[in-house]
Amino acid sequence: MSEFDLISRYFTTRFPQRADVNLGIGDDAAICTVPSGMQLVTSIDTLVAGVHFPLITKPEDIGYKALAVNLSDMAAMGATPVWMTLALTCPEVDAIWLQKFSQGLLELAQANQVSLIGGDTTRGPLTITIQIAGLVPSNTALKRSGAKPGDSIYVTGTIGDAGLGLAAINQQITLSKSAQEYTISRLNRPTPRLQEGQLLRGIANSAIDISDGLIADLGHILAASNVGASLQIDKLPLSKPLRESVSNETALELALNAGDDYELCFTTDLSTILPDISCTYIGKIEADLGLRCLTKQGDIFSPKTHGYQHFN
Amino acid sequence: MSEFDLISRYFTTRFPQRADVNLGIGDDAAICTVPSGMQLVTSIDTLVAGVHFPLITKPEDIGYKALAVNLSDMAAMGATPVWMTLALTCPEVDAIWLQKFSQGLLELAQANQVSLIGGDTTRGPLTITIQIAGLVPSNTALKRSGAKPGDSIYVTGTIGDAGLGLAAINQQITLSKSAQEYTISRLNRPTPRLQEGQLLRGIANSAIDISDGLIADLGHILAASNVGASLQIDKLPLSKPLRESVSNETALELALNAGDDYELCFTTDLSTILPDISCTYIGKIEADLGLRCLTKQGDIFSPKTHGYQHFN
Repeated sequence: MSEFDLISRYFTTRFPQRADVNLGIGDDAAICTVPSGMQLVTSIDTLVAGVHFPLITKPEDIGYKALAVNLSDMAAMGATPVWMTLALTCPEVDAIWLQKFSQGLLELAQANQVSLIGGDTTRGPLTITIQIAGLVPSNTALKRSGAKPGDSIYVTGTIGDAGLGLAAINQQITLSKSAQEYTISRLNRPTPRLQEGQLLRGIANSAIDISDGLIADLGHILAASNVGASLQIDKLPLSKPLRESVSNETALELALNAGDDYELCFTTDLSTILPDISCTYIGKIEADLGLRCLTKQGDIFSPKTHGYQHFN
Repeated sequence: MSEFDLISRYFTTRFPQRADVNLGIGDDAAICTVPSGMQLVTSIDTLVAGVHFPLITKPEDIGYKALAVNLSDMAAMGATPVWMTLALTCPEVDAIWLQKFSQGLLELAQANQVSLIGGDTTRGPLTITIQIAGLVPSNTALKRSGAKPGDSIYVTGTIGDAGLGLAAINQQITLSKSAQEYTISRLNRPTPRLQEGQLLRGIANSAIDISDGLIADLGHILAASNVGASLQIDKLPLSKPLRESVSNETALELALNAGDDYELCFTTDLSTILPDISCTYIGKIEADLGLRCLTKQGDIFSPKTHGYQHFN
């Protein structure tokens, strides 16, 4: 058996098995059944070493995060993840690295009963591409395009934490031990808000996950829905470690512009019947195009940076 | 608009639109409908520059081949390709390169009415991952695992051509102009045998596409089916350019061990009702495990190499 086969076997046997997978890894393609009344929801995300995660990131965290960012896309659609494929490009066959990487991936796959139905392993610079497939009852998926003037805007959890963790890793700031552990955990092991997304079907008019920063990602909702918004920046949900580690202004900059938190941002006109999820009201959708960040006093707040962009 | 957005727009608008794509590129995920009575067939393949194609390969050929190898997996399953996602990692935004790459991809997508439903564009060493989705009537997909003793073994088209083209590019051999053009075209622009695969549903007991070489890929059928085989090497379908460019022994080595031809290899016990496809009988499935290559005189032929393996 070649190393090539060994790797494949390594990933195949331990992942959750599902009855809707008719033929899993080991043929030219996998065969799956989508139940009638359900739509297929798919997304693909690539993580490149040194671009999407620091080179010093532990392999188990890389494996975890590679799946987490894809699950987060399912959360943003209100879908239930079911199957994944993995295209792993790595410079060499390092058994220990692969064991740890697959362990992190497996942990999150098991927690969400996601089957690994296919993959490709190639030699090259470390790059991880995962495609996730989910299911959603027909015509109930959350989209970016449904925000309406008058909608309230919410975010789940807290934002800005992952950005602070990255700054700590990049030695731009020194944190207390507990703040460092918390924020780096938020960066490396984001929690995809799957249950929240599913509970928001029929409630939210629009939704997105925050991968590039609140301003950038809310901006996608605004563009897709052809609306504007006012954000009340004093309402932004900031964690205690974030508030205690940096100035209020820096905390706001991170909350508005740092990515990688993978919280959901959604809009709704049904605030009175919101499901029981941890979320915070942060502003209103308006007919006037553009995004206005307002202080408690009603002044315009102009953040310095505008989210992470590749190829800058 | 950022370069990031520009790239995305570049790929979105020109690809075939399909009625079964309910939401295409531009949200957190795509939404598609699988018709009842059909199963979803998916496969993922990565091409790394310098590993899966020579660095000098034209971008339009890279785009074409990246989809072709995935369509070939659909062919091997007897599936009809419908949707694709593209994860493109490239070192820089080179508009001309991207235009040519997308042109090659588009050409084959249009010919097969495949929608591009999602993607991710990241900065890094040139790596192209495509996931293809296809549909097949439930329980009719071709698999590797159904070969039975007594089955006849067939291959479509001719084999060994792409290997000769690669040898020419690597300056291991000098070919006539016409032979060079033909074999490099076979390497860079393989024809996925989609129609053949679909016609073989209900006829073939097993099938695979030849990406790593006949011996390696037929070996996968034998392993999955727990059978053996005898090949009659004088029956191998060799093209005129291959036969005229190298010795008979080299031609056989290439036909048996070079990959990248993307022809189908299949087995059947229904040779008398084979559909009207271009294919050649090359041997028999046997109960005795292992693969025996036999000359016309019945002697054992031992090829020198055993297919392409990564990480060698």
